[in-house]
This record gives sequence, C-alpha cells and structure tokens, in this order.
Amino acid sequence: MLMGSPLAAWCIDRQPYYKPVGREVELFEASWQRRLPLMLKGPTGCGKTRLVEYMAWRLGRPLVTVACHDDLSANDLVGRWLLDADGTRWQDGPLAQAARFGAICYLDEVVEARADTAVVIHPLTDTRRMLPIPAHNELLAAHPDFMLVVSYNPGPAAREMKPSTRQRFGALALDYPAPEVESQIVAHESGIDIGAAKLIVGLGIRTRRLRGQGLDEGASTRMLVHAGVLVAQGVRASDACRMALVEALTDEPSTRQALEAALDASF
Amino acid sequence: MLMGSPLAAWCIDRQPYYKPVGREVELFEASWQRRLPLMLKGPTGCGKTRLVEYMAWRLGRPLVTVACHDDLSANDLVGRWLLDADGTRWQDGPLAQAARFGAICYLDEVVEARADTAVVIHPLTDTRRMLPIPAHNELLAAHPDFMLVVSYNPGPAAREMKPSTRQRFGALALDYPAPEVESQIVAHESGIDIGAAKLIVGLGIRTRRLRGQGLDEGASTRMLVHAGVLVAQGVRASDACRMALVEALTDEPSTRQALEAALDASF
Amino acid sequence: MLMGSPLAAWCIDRQPYYKPVGREVELFEASWQRRLPLMLKGPTGCGKTRLVEYMAWRLGRPLVTVACHDDLSANDLVGRWLLDADGTRWQDGPLAQAARFGAICYLDEVVEARADTAVVIHPLTDTRRMLPIPAHNELLAAHPDFMLVVSYNPGPAAREMKPSTRQRFGALALDYPAPEVESQIVAHESGIDIGAAKLIVGLGIRTRRLRGQGLDEGASTRMLVHAGVLVAQGVRASDACRMALVEALTDEPSTRQALEAALDASF
Amino acid sequence: MLMGSPLAAWCIDRQPYYKPVGREVELFEASWQRRLPLMLKGPTGCGKTRLVEYMAWRLGRPLVTVACHDDLSANDLVGRWLLDADGTRWQDGPLAQAARFGAICYLDEVVEARADTAVVIHPLTDTRRMLPIPAHNELLAAHPDFMLVVSYNPGPAAREMKPSTRQRFGALALDYPAPEVESQIVAHESGIDIGAAKLIVGLGIRTRRLRGQGLDEGASTRMLVHAGVLVAQGVRASDACRMALVEALTDEPSTRQALEAALDASF
Amino acid sequence: MLMGSPLAAWCIDRQPYYKPVGREVELFEASWQRRLPLMLKGPTGCGKTRLVEYMAWRLGRPLVTVACHDDLSANDLVGRWLLDADGTRWQDGPLAQAARFGAICYLDEVVEARADTAVVIHPLTDTRRMLPIPAHNELLAAHPDFMLVVSYNPGPAAREMKPSTRQRFGALALDYPAPEVESQIVAHESGIDIGAAKLIVGLGIRTRRLRGQGLDEGASTRMLVHAGVLVAQGVRASDACRMALVEALTDEPSTRQALEAALDASF
Amino acid sequence: MLMGSPLAAWCIDRQPYYKPVGREVELFEASWQRRLPLMLKGPTGCGKTRLVEYMAWRLGRPLVTVACHDDLSANDLVGRWLLDADGTRWQDGPLAQAARFGAICYLDEVVEARADTAVVIHPLTDTRRMLPIPAHNELLAAHPDFMLVVSYNPGPAAREMKPSTRQRFGALALDYPAPEVESQIVAHESGIDIGAAKLIVGLGIRTRRLRGQGLDEGASTRMLVHAGVLVAQGVRASDACRMALVEALTDEPSTRQALEAALDASF
Repeated sequence: MLMGSPLAAWCIDRQPYYKPVGREVELFEASWQRRLPLMLKGPTGCGKTRLVEYMAWRLGRPLVTVACHDDLSANDLVGRWLLDADGTRWQDGPLAQAARFGAICYLDEVVEARADTAVVIHPLTDTRRMLPIPAHNELLAAHPDFMLVVSYNPGPAAREMKPSTRQRFGALALDYPAPEVESQIVAHESGIDIGAAKLIVGLGIRTRRLRGQGLDEGASTRMLVHAGVLVAQGVRASDACRMALVEALTDEPSTRQALEAALDASF
Repeated sequence: MLMGSPLAAWCIDRQPYYKPVGREVELFEASWQRRLPLMLKGPTGCGKTRLVEYMAWRLGRPLVTVACHDDLSANDLVGRWLLDADGTRWQDGPLAQAARFGAICYLDEVVEARADTAVVIHPLTDTRRMLPIPAHNELLAAHPDFMLVVSYNPGPAAREMKPSTRQRFGALALDYPAPEVESQIVAHESGIDIGAAKLIVGLGIRTRRLRGQGLDEGASTRMLVHAGVLVAQGVRASDACRMALVEALTDEPSTRQALEAALDASF
Repeated sequence: MLMGSPLAAWCIDRQPYYKPVGREVELFEASWQRRLPLMLKGPTGCGKTRLVEYMAWRLGRPLVTVACHDDLSANDLVGRWLLDADGTRWQDGPLAQAARFGAICYLDEVVEARADTAVVIHPLTDTRRMLPIPAHNELLAAHPDFMLVVSYNPGPAAREMKPSTRQRFGALALDYPAPEVESQIVAHESGIDIGAAKLIVGLGIRTRRLRGQGLDEGASTRMLVHAGVLVAQGVRASDACRMALVEALTDEPSTRQALEAALDASF
Repeated sequence: MLMGSPLAAWCIDRQPYYKPVGREVELFEASWQRRLPLMLKGPTGCGKTRLVEYMAWRLGRPLVTVACHDDLSANDLVGRWLLDADGTRWQDGPLAQAARFGAICYLDEVVEARADTAVVIHPLTDTRRMLPIPAHNELLAAHPDFMLVVSYNPGPAAREMKPSTRQRFGALALDYPAPEVESQIVAHESGIDIGAAKLIVGLGIRTRRLRGQGLDEGASTRMLVHAGVLVAQGVRASDACRMALVEALTDEPSTRQALEAALDASF
Repeated sequence: MLMGSPLAAWCIDRQPYYKPVGREVELFEASWQRRLPLMLKGPTGCGKTRLVEYMAWRLGRPLVTVACHDDLSANDLVGRWLLDADGTRWQDGPLAQAARFGAICYLDEVVEARADTAVVIHPLTDTRRMLPIPAHNELLAAHPDFMLVVSYNPGPAAREMKPSTRQRFGALALDYPAPEVESQIVAHESGIDIGAAKLIVGLGIRTRRLRGQGLDEGASTRMLVHAGVLVAQGVRASDACRMALVEALTDEPSTRQALEAALDASF
Repeated sequence: MLMGSPLAAWCIDRQPYYKPVGREVELFEASWQRRLPLMLKGPTGCGKTRLVEYMAWRLGRPLVTVACHDDLSANDLVGRWLLDADGTRWQDGPLAQAARFGAICYLDEVVEARADTAVVIHPLTDTRRMLPIPAHNELLAAHPDFMLVVSYNPGPAAREMKPSTRQRFGALALDYPAPEVESQIVAHESGIDIGAAKLIVGLGIRTRRLRGQGLDEGASTRMLVHAGVLVAQGVRASDACRMALVEALTDEPSTRQALEAALDASF
C-alpha cells in the first residue's frame, strides 16, 4: 500500500509481539479515530514503545520514531536546507515527513527535548493541524492520517512538561505487566521455559521494591528478557541475572548487596 | 483577494467557531482600526489563539502565527540568506513577510522568546512602523494593514516581559468562558449532547480550583473538548475524563487522588 | 541631498513631532558641533528615540537606528561576508555604514548589547574616530558627519555599562514631559481634545507614583497616547485606560487593584 | 575476509595479549551470540579496552572504537553531509558504519558523552536494532553481526547514566588482575624479568589502598607496565617508579609523601 | 617607507599630542630595543592608548590596535579562511599581520579577552617569537620589528590575568597626569583657556576621590576634555560638567548628589 | 634530513640554550626510546618548554607545539575539511600531522584544554598508538618516531586532569634552577655580567617566598632575564626590576609594598 512512498521504510511489516496490560489498545484506537494527540506515561522499559509499534501495525500506518534529547532542535524535527550541486534542496525532518504523508509520529522521551521542540508541535495539536515551516516558507497542513504520540517517564527526577504543551494530549498511564503476563513475555522473547521465566520475573519484582531506596528504577521487562536470553545461551541463571540485572542496575555497593541477597533468595 | 500573494497560505478560509466571552471582539476591532499593537493575556487553552483566528477571518486579513520559544532567534522572525545555485537569496522570516505584505502577525507565548526577539519588534510598534533588517541592508516600512498581536499566560511561574517591550501594547485579559458557553463549545466541538458536555465542564471547573494547590493550571477548554471527543467515540465518560483530564493534568500521586475524587463525584 | 546614497532610506523626511522638555536640543547641538558621543538616559517611553529622530531631521543627517539586545554581535554592527555567485562580498553593518557615509548612529538600549558590541565602539569614540574591521582587513576612518548616540534606561534592575565605555560619552538625563506638555502630546498624537487628554495624563501620573511599589515603570507617554487613540476610536475612556494602561502595566493582582482604584478616581 | 570492506582498517590483525581475570570471556561470548548490548565497568586501566580488542580478534569482527567526551555529538557518531565538487555527499559516522557493515562498536567512557549521544543508541539496542538517520532520511537496519559495547568507570565522582539508557545493557564488572597475573602482564609487556615485575606490582597494589585517601584511583596495570618499560631501558627501579607511578599519580604533597614512603619500602 | 605595505593604513601620520607623566617614554624605548613584550596598567582614560600611539609614531612603526572583549576568539586575532570564487583564501588576523610585517600590536584591555586569546600570544612572547597558525598549517616567525603591547585596568573588580600569561611582560604603571599637566592637556585638546581648564581639572580630581565610594572610576582626562569641548562650544561650564562628568559618571542618586555638590563648589 | 617534509618548518635548527637541573635529560631519553608518553610538571617559566625544545633538537625530531586553552577543540588538533575550488580538502591538525610524519607533539598547559582534547589523545597513548579520525574516516597508525609530551603547572588553583588521562603518562617534576645555574642563565640570555645577574636572581628567589602569600607564582627565570635585558639596555637595575618583576607580578598594593621592600634590600 505504501510502496514507493517516502514512508515505506517506516512501515511495520510483522506483527510486533504485544501483550495488553489493560484497556490501552481500545483507548489508543479511540484516540486514533479522532486523531487526538496521545501521551504515554510509564517507567523505563514497561512497553510504551512496543505498544506504539503494535498499534501502528494494527492501524496499518507507518511509524516515524524520534528519540528526544537535549540537543534535538526544532530543525531536526521540521527539516533543513541541504547544499546541493544545484544550490540548496529542502529536506523534511521526521515530523514534517510524518505530517505530510500521514504517519504516526512517536516522540520518545519527549521531556528530554529542548523547549523549541515542544513548541513546534503546538500548531499540529490544534484543531487546525498545521505545521508552519518558516525556513521553507510553508504552512504544511497535516495529512488526515497523521497522529502524534509522545511518551515520557514521570519519575521524581523527571523534567516537567509545560502545561501549555501537556494539555494538548490525552494521556495513558502504563505500568509493568502483571507477573503472569510478564513471565509469558520473558519466555516468549528469550526462548526459555515458563518456569525459568517465572523465577527471573520474581527477582525483577523484588528489584522494583527498591525503587526510591537506592534505585531510580527497578528492572524493566527488557532486562528480564536479557537475563532469559543469557540463560537460553547456557549461562547459569544466577550469573545471567547478575549480569543482566544486578550489575546493570547499580554501581552503589550497598544497593548491590541488597540485590545480591535478592539474587541468592531467587535461585 | 489574496490569491497569488505570498500570504495566500495564511488566509483563514472558513469562519472559525468562536464564542465571545466579553467585549474582546469590539476592543480588538478598535485596536485594529488604528493598528495598535495588542497583547492577549490568559491561561493556557482559554481561547486566545482562537480569538486571533476569528478576528483575522472577520477582518479579512491573513494570519501569520509564530509559536515562540527559547531558541527562536531574531533571524527566525526577520529572515536570512539562503545559499542558491546563483549565490545567496534573501528569504523573509514570518514577521518580515507579515510586515511587508500586510498580515496580522501573531506571536504566541511571546515571553518564551529570547530577548532579541522581543527587541526586534520594538521599531514595528513605534509610530514609524519600520522593521530594520540589517542583514538585508533594508529598512522595511510596514504595510498599512500590518498589525502585531502577542499572547502570553501570566501565571506565577511565568517569565516577565521587559517594561520597555510591554508598554508598546494595549492588553486584553481573557479567561475561560462561563459554564453555559463552555458547555456549548464542548458539545459543538466534540459532537456530544449538551447534558454530557455540562458534566465534563463541571469536572473541568473543579480542576481549576486546584490551581496553585498541586496544579499549575486547571483543565483548559481544549481538554474538556478532548474528553467529549472520546465520549463521542464510545469511551465511557469516566475513562475519557481520566485520559483527557486526570492523567493529562498531573503525575503527582496526591493531586491525582484529588482529581480522581472529583471524577467520582462527577459521574 | 542624499539621493542615491546608501543611507537614503535612513533619512527623516518629515519633521517629527517633538516637544522639548528642557535644554536637550541646545545641548545635543553643541555635542553635534564637535561630534561628542552622546548618551541619553531616561525611563521607557519618555521620548529618547523621538528626540534623536527630531535632531537628525533638524541637523539634516540620516539616522541609522539599532535596537540592541543580548544576541547582537559585533559582526551585526560592523558587517560580514556574504556568499555570492562570484565568491564572497563584504556587507557593511549599520555601524560601519553610518561611519562610512556620515550618519547619526543610534544604539537604542545599549546596555542590552553584549560586551563585544560595547567594545567595538571604543575606537570610534576616540579622537582618532576609527573603526577597525579585522574581517575586512580595513581600518575605516569615520566620515566627518558621523556621530554616535546611545540610550539606556537606568532603572534599579538595569545592567551597568563598564566605566571604560561609559566615560566616552557626554550624558543627557531625560524624563517624562510636564503635565501640560504631555497633555498636548497625547491630544496631538491621538486626535482627542485637550480635556480628555488631561484626564488620561492625570491617570498616567498616578501610575508613575507606583514605581518601585509594584511597578517597575509607570505609564509612558506612549501608553497615554494609546489610551487616547482608543478613545478617539469610540471606546469608553475607562475601557481604553484599562486596556492601554492597567492591563498593559501589570499582571499582579494587588497592583492591578491599585491601578483600578486610580482608574475609578479618574473617570 | 574483510578486504575491500570499509571496515578493513578496523580489523585486529594480531592476537592481542590478554590474560582473563574471571569468566568475562565466556559471558562476553554468550552476549555476542544474541547480540545483547554489553557494558564493561571497572577502574581506569584495568583492561576493559584490551578485553574488547581481544574479543573482537577472537570473534573475527572488526572493532570500531570511539572515545566519548563532552563535545561528541550525535552527528559525530551517526554521520554528516560533506560538501563536494558535485554538491553534498553523505559520510557515515563510526556508529552508522559499524551498524551498516557489521562491526563491534565500542564506546569508551560512554558516560562522558552528551545526552544526545546516549539517546542515539537507544533504537539500536531495541529488538528492532534500527538506527534512524534523519539527516540522511534513512532508517538503517543494523547488520546481523553488529554489536554494541560500552565502558565506563563507576567511581564516586563519575557521572551517572540515565536508567533508560543503562537498562539496555548487560553489565560485566572488571577489576585489576590478581598479583600473579598482573606480574606476568608487566613482565611480558615491558620485557623485564618476573622478579622485578613482582616488586613493581607490589608497589602498585600499595597505591591502590590509597584510593579515596588522597588518590581518586590507584596505579593502573598500564602504569606498572610503564615503570617496567623504564627499568628495561636501564633506569633505576626507584626512579622508574617515581616517574611512572608517584609523579604520575598525584601533585598533592602529603599524598606524594605517602607514595614516596611506599616507594622506599618497595626497593 | 611603508607605502604599498599591507600595514600602510595602520601608520600614524601625525605626531599624537602626548605629555609624558614619568619615565614611561624612556622605559618603553628600552623595551622596544629588545622587543620585550610590554604591559601598560592604569585607570580608564589615563592615556595608555595615547602613549602607545605616540611611541608608534616616535619609533616609526605601524600600530595595529585590537580592542579585546569576551567574544574575541583566537581566530579573530590569527586569521581565518574566506570563501572565494576560486575556493578558500587565507586572511591574516591583525595579530598575524602585525607579526608578519613588523608592527606594534596593541591588545587594549587584554583581560577582557577569552582564555584562548591570551594563550595564542604565548609563543610570540617566547624567545622563539613564533606564531603557530594550525588552520593555515603555518609556523609564522615574527618580523624583527614586531612588538607586543597589552593594556589593562587593574581595578578591584578587574579580571586577573593568569600568571603564565602575565609573567611574559614587563609592566609599566600609569596614572592620571599631575594637575598642571592635565590642565594643559584639557586646554590644548578642547581649545579653552588654561584658567577654565584648571577649574574643570579641579572638579575632575574631586570626582576621583569618590573612587570606591560610589564610583568605580573617577573622571578620566578624556571626560575633562569633553567638558572643555562643550564650554568651547558656548555651553555654560556647570552645564558642560554636568553633561560630561556628573551624568556620565553615575546614575546612582546619592553619588549624583555628591557630584552635584562638587560641581557647585567648583563654579 | 626533513627537507621537503611537511614538518620541515617545525625542526629546531640551532641548539637551544639549556642548563639541566637534574636527571631530566636522561629520563626523557629513556622515555623516548620506548615512546612512553611524558608529562612535565612545574611552575610557570621554569624551563619546561625549553627542555622539550632542547630534547627535540638533541633527538633530531621536529617539534610540533600546541598551546592548549579552553576553546581548543578536538578538531583543532585532529584536522578538518577545508572548502576548495574542487570541493572539500582534508587538512591534518597538528596532532595528526605529528602522528603521521613522526614528530614530538608537545601540548603545553594541557589541563587548560577542553575534555574532548584530552580524550582524543587516549588511543595514541595506548599500545596500539592509533588516532581515529572519524571525520576523515581514517584510523591513523602513529609513525614509529611519534612521541607525545604534555606539560602543566600543578599549582593549588590548577585544574586537575582526569585519572584516566593522567595515568597514560610518565611524569617528570621540574623546578626553578639552583641560584648558580639560574644566574648563569640570566647572564647568558640578557648579556649582563654574572654579578649583576646574581643580584637579580637573589631578588627573584625572594619573590618566590611570597608564593601563596599574595602571589600565585614567584618570578620565573624568564622574568629575571627580562630584568637583565633592561639593565643591559641601560636601565637602572631597580627600575628594570620594578618593571620586569614588581609591576609584572602583582597589582595588589600590600604585595607590591612587600616586593618594593625586597627590591630596596636587593640594590
């Protein structure tokens, strides 16, 4: 359907593995019907990105992902002039491309972006759905299929979005999956059996209780999958968890000791 | 009328939906008659941008909107040289374009702009109505139909404008519409009936009471419309309000609890 | 006289309306006779810019005005190389142009400029009256008719000039005009009668007493003219003053209340 | 095998001298089998870089090393447009090159990099293993042989990685080798006999006890090799150790005295 | 002698008016004989720049003056590549030009320069007298007639030079001239008689006693000349001194009052 | 030997005058034999640079010197693309040039450099002796004759090197020469007799006792030579020392008084 389109490379060809944890799929779809801008909130590695990939596949739209950071400028999103043999040539940035051709544009960790990045999305989240591109002397009207999704992790140390930005989005709060579901995910993604996965998930849950007590974040589902992957590769479970969880979570000696104790208790 | 003009893309073709909340339309028109620079003050999402769109449509002038931010430089407004096959080519920025061809130029959230942006508008707000463009070696006299409008949100955490900038503008203070009017807006924009809209507006008003007590801002009219849109899409009212209002307003647990209580009381 | 000159656009064709408030015209002329650099000090909107325009007209010299700000670099004043079809081409900045062809160069709000801007004017304010332009490999001797004028507003929050810059200028302190004169100005500029102008000026004077007590600055003559303009447009005097004075002066509730009381007392 | 490949220059031709200190080789290989991103933690000069070189040689993959620092931008890693006689030409940065052609990419001292550098590796450490290159309008899928390794030194003064970055890696903690092994390394690398090497290693171990008591770090294996090298060159052992260890470790007089005492006790 | 030289524009054609205040001429000449780098210290406007001009004229060397500031980069001094129709062309900065062709290079207010500017002069102040120009791939040996002079004002608020820079210079401390000499200077430069000049100098000396008591600096000789110039133009002495001294020295009300009192006492 | 080489300009043609103060020449040579990176520590002007020049001459290698500072970027050391008539052309920076053609590269005051400069030398100080040049897509293997020498002044106010950089160097601590040697140096370099030189050196030693008591540094050997040069030029010894030592060392009145007393005691 999108062959030859400039967005072809951004299409999701295979169904991403995704286990719903609540009504997030239904609410995402409702937002999509009216192109309501969406904000996904939740801890690192709880599946925000995977949800967006799954929904893009389900809705049959290409997905343009931008990982936000301190040095991401508005121009990085909107586009810039390139110097060419025949002078300058305009090149759309990912946001302009998504708006022009009708993709879901996903700004990952949007609070990390600079102020100008946040402001650049304002007119796209108005009823007018426009993207002014002053450098290109253009007022780009978004494609009817364009939708904007942003994510962030609202921890105590997180930067805050300005209300004038934040109020433009409907928001879904996500969290780690329930133990049963998470064990299935770990088993499926790493290739170990469900019993071994449950042990790893059990340790993961213990690390999450240390959140705020030495750890900024507990182990993400992704880390539990890493441990499973090492086990599937023949590494002993305790070594795998030390490598994928303990050492990866902290350098702080006392926290590490607490994690080692949890590790001992688990295997 | 403006076909072929470089400002054609900035014209407002259809009458924007706007419900006056006071005498703002009359006072805007009086300012327009004498091209008095205008400053709109009010909370996020109370309708400042919509008012400007409505007035631009009513006065039949194109509207050049610039969302201001920390990295918006004077050059972004005034223009720059682009490299071309034949050397360099001057490109007006949005402010210069508006001044040259006679548009209403709207600087949204002007206090977010850097100091140089603020200063660049000074000579345009003098009786001489000139825009010096040193890089282009030009002293641009504004078109007779040029008018400058700026907006900002004067909350306690807001940056301040310098008096030397601020004193160049007449100022209109706007606020959220009265409940009756706001309910009509929500119903009209989302497509739900007036009864459901009133419930949502009631919850919105409750959130505004939390301003300064956990919230920087209460729910904007825009957020109430979002909730209505989700309801119109078949989402349960409480889920819609949780998504469009509660989660979108705060990450702070105790404030969220207060909002959930208000949510329970509303439905 | 200056037709065809690169400074033609900067000439003042019509006599600007200016009411002297002291001996500033005489002292400006004495400075001009010997090209003594001049510094104008005074509050926002008291007429510094208008005085310079008037003197430029009276002395028959073009006036090159630069509004200073944080991002104004020495290059913006002195000039830069532009890329052209045939390589690079030098373009004088406004200061170099004024020095080369003999204009009055007016640096408005000079304390807002960066340190390098201030230093760049040093050799022009020496007895040698030279402008070194390293990038152009040029030591430009100023035209005999070149004169440098700077202005600033010495409020308590103002930045300070370095003594080594400041001591290069003779200084004139300006202030708001006397009530009689100010009423004439308001009436003349807005087109209302002298009685209505006096009422507005009276309110303006009351706001100036709040300086340092909630207001950084009182209402400028410019703001009083704004109020007059709205009245001339058919707006009620109290509405006009609320828009042009009260709302434009402050967002702070208690100061606003004080201003509203002054408004009530005035009309 | 890689002749003619753009990565040919990054291949390790000769087996690097490496003495394992634990199970790091086995665990590195398990990570490699599944391309699990790897983080090496440990003090300065304990052999992190050497381990990566050894593994790259052992696995037969080219090794692209990037020393991270404050000014390393995302573009330095990803690539940029170069101006050419025929216009612009895209040049992959080291990370893009490694991802495109299948190398181990080693980001040394990754915590020194700016935030944008850290974020740029996120999509490469997802299951999708993609590198979006907005400037090149490309979504680069990593080569099956691409693997990412990062290192850092988790001292008390070290910067912290953000959890959202850190949780993408399995982590191996390394330390200085045991005295026997370290003596063999010093003897082998410098060309002195094992007895002299043991004396130097003994002094090195003493310096490590001063860690946190005047020294940020004790002497690295590399420094001990330096001392051995000087001895092999005919320098007296005490002079060699003063030059390679004492003076190189500190400028602080009292710490230096403690080190001189350790030096006297050793020879 | 220097006609056609790239330094021709920097020659001092007419003998600058200079009244020695001590043995500075003799000591400057001794430094010149051996090209010892020289540092002039003293308050604003006491005649440092004039001394350098006088010595350049006396020694028959061109004088390349650079006013230092925060944004002056090493490249501004050393040179840069310019883009040309035939590619890039190297352009010496003022320091490189002075070193190449044998001028006195005078860095005015050198402490205002950035660190890199200070360091760039180090190799020129060594016995080797070289200027490495990495960007031009050149190691420029200074012309035998090249000499480096710097100045600064060592007030309490002044920035400090790093010892490694400072120790490269011989230093001359200058101060305001004695009253007799200063009166002659004021009379000569402004064209007023010696009696009127003495009155102005007397007031100037009084202002200098306020140094550190409200004033960062007292009135410079230059300011006294300004006052004389206005008197010569027919302005009353008290008005001239208010404009050239009082208003130019301070905005602070109590200091201004003290200066007004001194003014009243003087005339 | 190096004629036609790109390093020809960096060769030391004449034997620099150097008086050894300890075993530094022997230890430098031992380091050279094995190309051990070397760090020279010692106060300003004690002869670090002269030692490197002497050793480069003695070893017959060209010497590429870079004075480090805050704005020295990694690109300044490594190289950059220049725009040419035929597109871009790569130009090695001094470090790349030294590594490519086999010079001693001397980074003077290395702690003044930015973090990225320090990191760029890491791979050159490994056993692999490589310089990755990402912008040139090159992994440059250092010439067998390449050696890296850095210097810095470890005063109490000095910046610290990161251990990971510092541990890559052997270190030599240098100090001022003994009085006998220093007097010979002063006499030789300035052309005065040994008796006069001894008086100056005596005063210099007194100033060094004020280190930490008003002075950051005492008088360097270079300053004593300056005083000798002035004496040789016919200046009275006390005037020469006031100019070359007292005024050059401090602006602080009480320290100056102490120095004046030392001056009086000396002559």
